[in-house]
Amino acid sequence: MFVSEFKMRVRYGETDQMGYMYHGNYAQYYEVGRVEALRQLGTSYKALEEEGVMMPVLEIQSKFIRPALYDDEITIRTMLRELPKARVSFEFELLDESGNLLHTATVHLAFVRASDMRPIRCPQSLLEVFKPYFT
Amino acid sequence: MFVSEFKMRVRYGETDQMGYMYHGNYAQYYEVGRVEALRQLGTSYKALEEEGVMMPVLEIQSKFIRPALYDDEITIRTMLRELPKARVSFEFELLDESGNLLHTATVHLAFVRASDMRPIRCPQSLLEVFKPYFT
Amino acid sequence: MFVSEFKMRVRYGETDQMGYMYHGNYAQYYEVGRVEALRQLGTSYKALEEEGVMMPVLEIQSKFIRPALYDDEITIRTMLRELPKARVSFEFELLDESGNLLHTATVHLAFVRASDMRPIRCPQSLLEVFKPYFT
Amino acid sequence: MFVSEFKMRVRYGETDQMGYMYHGNYAQYYEVGRVEALRQLGTSYKALEEEGVMMPVLEIQSKFIRPALYDDEITIRTMLRELPKARVSFEFELLDESGNLLHTATVHLAFVRASDMRPIRCPQSLLEVFKPYFT
Repeated sequence: MFVSEFKMRVRYGETDQMGYMYHGNYAQYYEVGRVEALRQLGTSYKALEEEGVMMPVLEIQSKFIRPALYDDEITIRTMLRELPKARVSFEFELLDESGNLLHTATVHLAFVRASDMRPIRCPQSLLEVFKPYFT
Repeated sequence: MFVSEFKMRVRYGETDQMGYMYHGNYAQYYEVGRVEALRQLGTSYKALEEEGVMMPVLEIQSKFIRPALYDDEITIRTMLRELPKARVSFEFELLDESGNLLHTATVHLAFVRASDMRPIRCPQSLLEVFKPYFT
Repeated sequence: MFVSEFKMRVRYGETDQMGYMYHGNYAQYYEVGRVEALRQLGTSYKALEEEGVMMPVLEIQSKFIRPALYDDEITIRTMLRELPKARVSFEFELLDESGNLLHTATVHLAFVRASDMRPIRCPQSLLEVFKPYFT
Repeated sequence: MFVSEFKMRVRYGETDQMGYMYHGNYAQYYEVGRVEALRQLGTSYKALEEEGVMMPVLEIQSKFIRPALYDDEITIRTMLRELPKARVSFEFELLDESGNLLHTATVHLAFVRASDMRPIRCPQSLLEVFKPYFT
């Protein structure tokens, strides 16, 4: 299993008039979690796109437990429980500064060839960076 | 069962560099679908908030079937299969101009009293507008 | 002079915890104003991009007079005072349902060839649709 | 004169199909620049709001010089040339990783009492943190 953490603060523009982070903005946090997880592994989503691979999102499941509030420093915990095949599933936990669990999510993504948007299997270069965590 | 439809176009600012509507922007479409469904019923989410009721989101499940593209006029179909109780579950289908199904989602919301954010049951005023569809 | 109007409602996700439409979201309203102005003229920004022309933004000036509030139906008035040349300048006024002026803005855009992002003059096809308003 | 710098990366969700950071998203960068400038001074915008002071935006002027691209680490340079009075004017420069100037902006904000949204002068607590830079 691979686990990575990254911290980011809730922006004013991400709140809504309920005084919470708007529920529609959490997907950007999952995206940052994934991207920073790849960076910690020495690769990047940008590099994948430059190789001609894109990762469109197939499914998202989100649970809102406690609200994230303005200026809170949120920890995004990004987890991979299985090696990617034709698709990859990331799990996310969002925690506040006291370690309270605010939110969980699972995001399923495909791999496609950018030239024609046809599905492909997980690129070998990406598999290699995850493999050490699954032995 | 209650069904409502509303059309809106994908804004340039909602696309991403994949050339698709960014996956994180769909939640705003569900929100518009719900809000316009209430308006078609002669009430509004704004009126609910003015009565002191808020509806935080508890869970979202989303499936991305085909991409929504820039300037497409998307039909948001908002469906309610059961009368709300302590919570309410809306189902959504997004369709393109040719009637192709692009996306489905289910959103579960709670009812809370704005003064203290404590859970309450669905307000009677809201139940009344839905009841004619469930007899 | 060319003037066009389009109405759209402030989404919940566009508000912030001040209870106003977040100031960073107005630029999307200018974009919708421009795009719907072109559509009223029988063309579209999408068609321009398909012709290989893009219109990056060069400058924006915005004045916030009164707040736009959740669920308000905002009228976006899009104005063109001069025919486009190497660049084009749109002026915007945002009004609430009572006709109060909420916001003004000017947006200057360039024309570039999508293939190499090099500046070009305003495409003839676009000039033609504006010309009848400047005689 | 007070100058502060903060770095943040362009999110995928902030790009548009032109392959650039969407022009409407820069205002969030100014906001983060201001907020982190206050934090570096030992105070915070959140603390101001908790004191009952809000800072609505009055005017924005933006110049787009070069595009910000996906995953670029942008330096936001936040500058204050004059002590705040009834309003405050921040200037911003956005730079890429090579130090190229991408974007400049000026944002003018008011101070209002949150209880009634009436204008007030800059709170003394905020003046104090800026004063050492203007002697």
